[in-house]
Amino acid sequence: MPLYLRGTLELASQGADFISSQRLADHLGLTPWLIRKDFSYFGDLGKRGVGYDTRTLVSRIKKILRLNVDRRAVLVGAGRLGSALLEYGGFGRYGLQIVAAFDRDGAKVGEMIGGVRVEHVNGLATVAGRGIDMGILAVPEESAQEIADALLMAGIRGILSFSPRHIAMPKRVKVITIDIAMDLARLPYYLSGNRR
Amino acid sequence: MPLYLRGTLELASQGADFISSQRLADHLGLTPWLIRKDFSYFGDLGKRGVGYDTRTLVSRIKKILRLNVDRRAVLVGAGRLGSALLEYGGFGRYGLQIVAAFDRDGAKVGEMIGGVRVEHVNGLATVAGRGIDMGILAVPEESAQEIADALLMAGIRGILSFSPRHIAMPKRVKVITIDIAMDLARLPYYLSGNRR
Repeated sequence: MPLYLRGTLELASQGADFISSQRLADHLGLTPWLIRKDFSYFGDLGKRGVGYDTRTLVSRIKKILRLNVDRRAVLVGAGRLGSALLEYGGFGRYGLQIVAAFDRDGAKVGEMIGGVRVEHVNGLATVAGRGIDMGILAVPEESAQEIADALLMAGIRGILSFSPRHIAMPKRVKVITIDIAMDLARLPYYLSGNRR
Repeated sequence: MPLYLRGTLELASQGADFISSQRLADHLGLTPWLIRKDFSYFGDLGKRGVGYDTRTLVSRIKKILRLNVDRRAVLVGAGRLGSALLEYGGFGRYGLQIVAAFDRDGAKVGEMIGGVRVEHVNGLATVAGRGIDMGILAVPEESAQEIADALLMAGIRGILSFSPRHIAMPKRVKVITIDIAMDLARLPYYLSGNRR
């Protein structure tokens, strides 16, 4: 569903008021029957023939993904990657916002990046009570578990981690890991022919 | 399999010569039967009771994933994200290396980042013949397709893209997209209770 949301948002931004499953499928490199099948689980999302009303579709998928309320995230680690995330404007389309940033490096504290003021990591506990329920980890691998533990104490219930190391959390906290090296390592499998 | 490779490498780095499916499962937050089932497709990877020899396991999985030969990648876009990737040391464990970097910004050309000298993007065609078959796109969304087309012309057969926009490529070129905003957007679905 997140992928369908992205595709629908893109086509809507190109001015499409209605989209067929065929058009969405073409755009995303999928098959229309897969889209119709997936959508069928969520009741009537559109009319046969006319296609889906993009505004309705976006709002329905957002509700399914619980993106219908604004969500606030804290970022820990304002290095190159963390700064890139703070400056990235793409979160807003999903109703997500990074509203706080922390770093261990005193020299970075007070710096404004992407409109957010960097705070010292020792103050991470102050996240509690600021309406933030998601954390983004862009810290060195060896600090990831420690920071995740601190986020847990501060009431965070979902973590997006850029550290490839496995983070141990209670079951009630969802951890999604983005392991860039591993994603790159998936490519060679598909490079058929000319195997040096 | 990439996940199993990562888990096995981590346990090996902690000094484990043999690992059981139980230990690997615990480490990755999976179930042992799933691991045994997946491994069973690839013939005899270990002995019941003794567990898997980590060195053999790493080498077998690498072969399955075609990571048994060194792979060279080119990065386009040496901004914050691109620079973070160039300086990231985690690719080596999979036999991957970023050996060239390009940027549109003349001011960045010649700069050394992570041991790689940034070249001007107009010279992208020179990638052909340098033993590089993978490209990493860390460019603004609106340039992604154009740069991907240039990489295609330069003989690249696999692309890792950080642009959320869909990139159209011939079927023979594999494109893996990392959409960070979409990954973050997957979290709210799991944040049960306390829905503001």
